[in-house]
Amino acid sequence: MAKKTDARAEKVIKKLVGLGNEAVREVAAGENPSVEIPLRALSNINFNEKRQIIELGNAKQERYLFKVGMARKFMQTFLVASACKDLLEEGKTTSIRDLYYITKHTLGQSRANTFEEQDESDPIIEDLEVTIDSLREELNLHASNKGAAVGDLTIVDSGDVIDLRRMGSGGWSVPSIVEENVIQFRRGSKAKYVLLVEKDAVWRRLNEDRYWKKHECILVHGGGMVARGLRRFLYRLHHELDLPVYVVVDNDPWGLYIYSVVKQGSINLAYESVRMAIPKARFLGLSSFDREGFDLPPNVTIKLNDQDRRRGEQMLKYPWFEKKQWQKEIQQLLKAGVKLELEALSAKGISFISEKYLPQKIEAKQWLV
Amino acid sequence: MAKKTDARAEKVIKKLVGLGNEAVREVAAGENPSVEIPLRALSNINFNEKRQIIELGNAKQERYLFKVGMARKFMQTFLVASACKDLLEEGKTTSIRDLYYITKHTLGQSRANTFEEQDESDPIIEDLEVTIDSLREELNLHASNKGAAVGDLTIVDSGDVIDLRRMGSGGWSVPSIVEENVIQFRRGSKAKYVLLVEKDAVWRRLNEDRYWKKHECILVHGGGMVARGLRRFLYRLHHELDLPVYVVVDNDPWGLYIYSVVKQGSINLAYESVRMAIPKARFLGLSSFDREGFDLPPNVTIKLNDQDRRRGEQMLKYPWFEKKQWQKEIQQLLKAGVKLELEALSAKGISFISEKYLPQKIEAKQWLV
Repeated sequence: MAKKTDARAEKVIKKLVGLGNEAVREVAAGENPSVEIPLRALSNINFNEKRQIIELGNAKQERYLFKVGMARKFMQTFLVASACKDLLEEGKTTSIRDLYYITKHTLGQSRANTFEEQDESDPIIEDLEVTIDSLREELNLHASNKGAAVGDLTIVDSGDVIDLRRMGSGGWSVPSIVEENVIQFRRGSKAKYVLLVEKDAVWRRLNEDRYWKKHECILVHGGGMVARGLRRFLYRLHHELDLPVYVVVDNDPWGLYIYSVVKQGSINLAYESVRMAIPKARFLGLSSFDREGFDLPPNVTIKLNDQDRRRGEQMLKYPWFEKKQWQKEIQQLLKAGVKLELEALSAKGISFISEKYLPQKIEAKQWLV
Repeated sequence: MAKKTDARAEKVIKKLVGLGNEAVREVAAGENPSVEIPLRALSNINFNEKRQIIELGNAKQERYLFKVGMARKFMQTFLVASACKDLLEEGKTTSIRDLYYITKHTLGQSRANTFEEQDESDPIIEDLEVTIDSLREELNLHASNKGAAVGDLTIVDSGDVIDLRRMGSGGWSVPSIVEENVIQFRRGSKAKYVLLVEKDAVWRRLNEDRYWKKHECILVHGGGMVARGLRRFLYRLHHELDLPVYVVVDNDPWGLYIYSVVKQGSINLAYESVRMAIPKARFLGLSSFDREGFDLPPNVTIKLNDQDRRRGEQMLKYPWFEKKQWQKEIQQLLKAGVKLELEALSAKGISFISEKYLPQKIEAKQWLV
C-alpha cells in the first residue's frame, strides 16, 4: 500500500486545492467562478509528427458556476475533486464506480441528486485529469486489473517483493495503478526486450514453453485491447529499463489498432499519450505476409467482414501508417481478403510460435515501426 | 509446469486410449463402431436433494460412425480425443481455441474441413469430458485466467512457491487449471475462512485495507460470474483445508445466481457439480434486508428491470431456494423493487465494508445457506 501521503500525492493534492482556492478567490472578488478545462474533442486532437504521438491541442473551455447548463457540471467537478483529495489524504484508492457512489447524494432538501448515473461522473473525472494534468491513477482511481506479466524482472508492488521469474502458470496480474509510488523495478534484470502478445491463451503457451527464460525477456499480455495500466507499465519498462517493446497481435484491423494504441495513443485518451505512448514499439506480427512466409495451411484463415474492410481502409489514411512499408502491409491484408489469428500458428505445431515463429522474426529483424 | 506425464495424466490417457481401442475392436468385429455419451440436456438434469447439487442423470446417447448425421461428429470426437492424448503425452496445455486450430484440417483430397468453426469443436470437448468422466482441465485444456486471490496461504504453482500474503496490490491471478498436479497448498495457513466477493473493485478495497490479514482469511474475487477454474479452486480450499466459504455479491438476481452456481452448480455444467459445487457455501450478502439493517441512504438503489423481476420469480421456484429463509430473502428483493450494488456501501464511507459490514455480519452469523 502507498504511504498515507508521499511527495507525489502532495503534489496532486496541491493542484486540487489550488483549483478550489481559485474558485473561492473568484467568489470573494464578486466574479463568476470558473474552471478552465482543456477541450477533449476530435477538433482539438492532432498527430504530433515530431514526437510521433496523438496529442491534445491547446483549445480550452471555461466552465462557469453561474451559467445555464454549466452550474451542475461545475458543482460535480468540485465534488469529484474533493473526493479525490480525500482519497489522496487517506492514502486509499478506489474504483470509478465507487467514486460515483461516494459522491452521489441528494442535494439539501431537494429531490435532485448530485449524480444520477455513473455516465455523468466518468467524464467529470476525465475533465479533472486534463485540468490539473494528472492521470486518474495519480488521483488514486483504479480500474480492473487487466493483463499479466512474467519474465526476467523483480518488482516491488506495494512493498511486496515479487519475482516475475517465479509466478507459476498464472503470472503477475498487472494492476491499473502502476505509478512509481506503488510499483518499483528492482535492478538485476537481464531482459533484452519486452514481448507484448494480444491474447492470454498465446501468452500461456509462451509461458509454459518458458520462452521468456530461453530468450531473456519480459512476457506480457493485455487480454485483448491494452488497458491504461498495462500501457503505463510498458511505457515504464521501455523508458526506465531501456527495453525495446515488440508487439504480436492477430493479423486483422483490430490487431493493428491495438498496436497503434500502444505506439501512438488513442483519440479518446489523447491527453495521456505523453505518458503512455511508445512511438518506437515494434510490430512483429502477425503480418499479412506471414501466411506465405511461414507456409501456413489455407484453411486457417477467416474472411474479412465489411467492418474489417472499413477499418482497414481507414487505417491506410492514418498519418502514422503513411510510411510505404505500412501501406504495403495493410494493402496486402485487404487484397488477401482474409485475417489470421495467432492461434492459427498452432496448425504448424503447438509450440511453433515459441520455437520457430518468434525467434526467426526477431533474429531476422522482421518488424515494422 | 507439469511433468511430462504423471499418474494423473496416465489415467486420462488410458481412458482416451480405451475409447479408441473399443472402436477398433468394433471395426474388427464387423460392428458399427460407436461411443456412448451421457446426455447433456435439460431432460437429463436433476437436483440431488441428498447431496444438494445439480447433477447429470443416467440417460445416454450412442454416437455411431455409420449413421446419417452422426459420422461427422463421430470423426470429430476421435480427432479431439487424439489431440488431447498428444497434449497429455507432451505435458502441454492449450486453449480450446487453439485446439480448434490444431484439429482443423482439410479431409484428404476433398474440400471438406474437419471443423468449420470453433462452435463445432467446443461441444465435442464437452462430450468427451462426460464420456470419459474427466474435466477439460484434466484433458490439459485451459480457459483464460479469471479472478484473483490473496490471503493467509502459500501455494505451489507449477513448481513456483507463491506466498499469497505477499502479492502486492494485484494478487495472484487464478488460472483455469488448478488441479493437484499444477497447484498444491502448503501447510501452515492460519486462514479461518474463504471470502469470495463478486467484484474486483471491492476485492481491491478489502486487499488495500488488509482485511485478510486482520481477519485471517483468504480473499478471492471472480470478476463477475465465477469461472470454472475459480470454482474448482474454492472447492479445493473448502475440502482440503476444511474452510467455510462466504459469498458476497450484489443484491440482485444476478448476484443470487452467482451464489447459486458456487453452491449447487449450474445447469449447463451439471456434469461438473460433483467436483465444483459447494453446497455449504454461505451467502453473507448483500441481503435485501441490508438496506434497512445498515441504514443505507435511499438514493444508492437501482430499480429492478423486467429481466430482474423475471429472474427473481424463477429463483423463487428453484428447489435449492425453497427454504423459508430464502423465500423471504427473494420475496423482499421483489417487494422492494430495487437492487443494490456492493459499491453502494461506500456511501457510508470508503472502508465501511471492511470495517463494519463484513465483521458485523460474520460476528452475528448473519448468513443464509
